[in-house]
Amino acid sequence: MRQITSKDNPNIKEYVRLCGSRKSRTESGCFVLEGMRLVCDAHQSGVRIGLLLVTEEGMARLGERFAALSDAAGETVLIDRRIAGQIAQTKTPQGVFAVCEGALWRGEPSSPPALGRGALLLCSLQDPGNVGTIIRSAEAFGLSAVLMSADCPDPASPKVLRASMGAALRLPLYRCPDPAETVGRLREAGIPVFAAALGERSAPVGEVSLRGAVVAVGNEGAGLSEEFCARCDRRVILPIAPGSESLNAAMAASIFAWELSRAARGEENR
Amino acid sequence: MRQITSKDNPNIKEYVRLCGSRKSRTESGCFVLEGMRLVCDAHQSGVRIGLLLVTEEGMARLGERFAALSDAAGETVLIDRRIAGQIAQTKTPQGVFAVCEGALWRGEPSSPPALGRGALLLCSLQDPGNVGTIIRSAEAFGLSAVLMSADCPDPASPKVLRASMGAALRLPLYRCPDPAETVGRLREAGIPVFAAALGERSAPVGEVSLRGAVVAVGNEGAGLSEEFCARCDRRVILPIAPGSESLNAAMAASIFAWELSRAARGEENR
Repeated sequence: MRQITSKDNPNIKEYVRLCGSRKSRTESGCFVLEGMRLVCDAHQSGVRIGLLLVTEEGMARLGERFAALSDAAGETVLIDRRIAGQIAQTKTPQGVFAVCEGALWRGEPSSPPALGRGALLLCSLQDPGNVGTIIRSAEAFGLSAVLMSADCPDPASPKVLRASMGAALRLPLYRCPDPAETVGRLREAGIPVFAAALGERSAPVGEVSLRGAVVAVGNEGAGLSEEFCARCDRRVILPIAPGSESLNAAMAASIFAWELSRAARGEENR
Repeated sequence: MRQITSKDNPNIKEYVRLCGSRKSRTESGCFVLEGMRLVCDAHQSGVRIGLLLVTEEGMARLGERFAALSDAAGETVLIDRRIAGQIAQTKTPQGVFAVCEGALWRGEPSSPPALGRGALLLCSLQDPGNVGTIIRSAEAFGLSAVLMSADCPDPASPKVLRASMGAALRLPLYRCPDPAETVGRLREAGIPVFAAALGERSAPVGEVSLRGAVVAVGNEGAGLSEEFCARCDRRVILPIAPGSESLNAAMAASIFAWELSRAARGEENR
């Protein structure tokens, strides 16, 4: 096994570049993963591992799983603890890192994908932690996909991947350069699209059928634009108690994901 | 207005002590707040402000609200930006700090409190951010209260207060030294208690009536103990897709809060 002892090594430089730069990820079609769990999950999900970087401790931690990972990887390289500390994004690195190939985005579908179990459309969200948490909830509740405007955080970024607990590697994620246009095409295909937004004619979520629907969720501060909402079938809200703080975006989107899953199971009471 | 220019001033030392030490908060019955929004929310919620600490910039930011806060406060003291930076818990402090009086815990009620709109019982949660987020969701969904085991993070800690967006100042919070015993007393009073836990006889949440119920949520890693679950009416789960990551504790508890609110509105389909 090749060993790397300098952080100026081209592999290490590539790892760091992919870790920090969305542009590098987009151009190369590669992304990085850190941690035993994420790397093993990725392997199991069929993600192609180009380069596996491990410390002695990481190898020991992986135990029997090391052979399978190493067989699957294009190359496996041993790094020392110092380098691991330098490239790690976590406080107590496990010594397992991977450069993976393949974009997580599926690009915009030419025809609307099968969204029978419902989907979320994230518009201009800002926080990578929120996006990761939402993808995790969407997977847990069995949604068909998450659609995202192009200005959302990159799902292949380390923060989104970590917050999603690997769900971003498994759930279909579609990129929508123009979400309003996407809404038009979904509706033409007979898929109802609801805007999670307060407005004069907003319906409490309990009053609409979310079966096979798409729910659009807006930016943490600004929400969805009037113009965008006008393109959707209807505005829906989660009724909250008067005088209370609004829900945070991840929480609201997770509850819409839950409601979509209830609708898919036929548990709506309307 | 008195000015403080040294971080060795007793008021500043008290602030720092209350900020970092649960023991100090418990013994003194005081807690601290940082930020314009939290301090103003607290004042509006009737929290007694013993000491208001502001920088020149904080005063300017507060604008017209400064007079009302200052009138309400036992004393108002001007601090310089350097001290503000030293006592702040946020990266870009707004220059508004308060020492408040009164415990947020209500202690264990001698008879079960009115929980008609449902409640959560948090058992041994670890993460202050999760606890704050859960309290925020519980308030938003109009629950009657949140009950907490004594080993949960202190709701008067800066992290819980911040994550709750001030909801911890408004929602009744009850402290339960022995949660299993609390469950017994609630059930004696005719209040159904469900354990959010996977088990052989767990019911999907859609199959039980949560009207006026209490849902117990366990520790992030270990969940609820077998022994505790046996004391409850039944185990309930949120059905999740096979092969997906489990939900995080804050997300699961928030969805139970949502389901309790649906039940309180009579929106259950059973």
